[in-house]
Amino acid sequence: MSGTIDARLSEIGLTLPEPAAPVAAYVPAVEQDGFLYISGQLPFDDGQLMLGRFGEDRDIAFGQKAARMCGVMLVAQMKAALGDLDRVVRIVKLGVFVNSDPRFTEQAQVANGASELMQEIFGEPGRHARSAVGVPVLPLGVAVEIDAIVAVSDG
Amino acid sequence: MSGTIDARLSEIGLTLPEPAAPVAAYVPAVEQDGFLYISGQLPFDDGQLMLGRFGEDRDIAFGQKAARMCGVMLVAQMKAALGDLDRVVRIVKLGVFVNSDPRFTEQAQVANGASELMQEIFGEPGRHARSAVGVPVLPLGVAVEIDAIVAVSDG
Amino acid sequence: MSGTIDARLSEIGLTLPEPAAPVAAYVPAVEQDGFLYISGQLPFDDGQLMLGRFGEDRDIAFGQKAARMCGVMLVAQMKAALGDLDRVVRIVKLGVFVNSDPRFTEQAQVANGASELMQEIFGEPGRHARSAVGVPVLPLGVAVEIDAIVAVSDG
Repeated sequence: MSGTIDARLSEIGLTLPEPAAPVAAYVPAVEQDGFLYISGQLPFDDGQLMLGRFGEDRDIAFGQKAARMCGVMLVAQMKAALGDLDRVVRIVKLGVFVNSDPRFTEQAQVANGASELMQEIFGEPGRHARSAVGVPVLPLGVAVEIDAIVAVSDG
Repeated sequence: MSGTIDARLSEIGLTLPEPAAPVAAYVPAVEQDGFLYISGQLPFDDGQLMLGRFGEDRDIAFGQKAARMCGVMLVAQMKAALGDLDRVVRIVKLGVFVNSDPRFTEQAQVANGASELMQEIFGEPGRHARSAVGVPVLPLGVAVEIDAIVAVSDG
Repeated sequence: MSGTIDARLSEIGLTLPEPAAPVAAYVPAVEQDGFLYISGQLPFDDGQLMLGRFGEDRDIAFGQKAARMCGVMLVAQMKAALGDLDRVVRIVKLGVFVNSDPRFTEQAQVANGASELMQEIFGEPGRHARSAVGVPVLPLGVAVEIDAIVAVSDG
């Protein structure tokens, strides 16, 4: 039965954005042998990149929002790649990179913005493995970048 | 034949700790289509997090110990997720993140603490692909974080 | 039909180097269930490591060359692991780590050096998912490190 996850998105009032085009010579997602590998996604708020560095000019609340918006873009990429979000079998792994001053140690709190979104949308299959690390800088100066591995059923 | 790896752990005198609970909204490990994806693990020594930054207040010996303890926690997560460590077919990949001052370039030496443990426990199937990189900071200020992909047989 | 990719390498005038030995206790690549996981590769130019940090002592042109040379080494590792490069079904994912001063935000431009090489060699199956992030330092002080996941056919 198709459309279950789309209905869930409506229920929580989430409209998926146009999936972002890659900023360079690669593709947003590759489906291979039951897994969808999604490129690192950047956070957009109302079409604007969410920039900044934690421990410097950004706080955890901004970070959780940024991580959530990376998550929204990951879901938009799943929709574009799979056609039907009900083909998502399991969110397997998120790789979370947090633009951090060396004194900022709350990468896990920031990353929760994306992790909680996945559970909110996909329920139990949204619960995933994760790594979250600090980095000194990210492409275009964004605050958070997240990539993903997703298990998918046949189209 | 079950229990082979447990016997090996006894032989090398290694007692697995309680697997650490995730510090946030995710799960320690996801098994999918013959692969176990394990979340980034932090290093504990006698129940205390191993903190610090290489090139600043920590040396390579501390780093190898910290990487080894991340490895011990990865094995504890395998045991918790799989039930039986003999289901491990191959340690496929370790992702090693080393809390580094920009002048510290011995990430590979630090990461060896985990890589050697995997070979010590699992023998030839413990030999894995790896990436090791410096990062400016890690969750809670730990010195090393390591995630893993493991090939597993059916339960 | 074997030798197609080798012919393509000749056509573009690319001679693969000896695959680099791991700098530590791990293996260059692990093949498992249709995927080849390749360890993080460092960039060599005429046998010398390409060192430095972007935003400090290196520019984007150097970075694209370094990323390309990481890509060349990834292909050399594929050849060594698979025997025949025609077994490459798809370049699935590149993980690109760029040695960056916190003010340098062109990681995507740097990473393109590797991404374009993959498309040049493998054509459409060379188009991959990717993450590119800044890091404060890399093993031995290199400018770029890249790991890869490749889908492969049976040997």
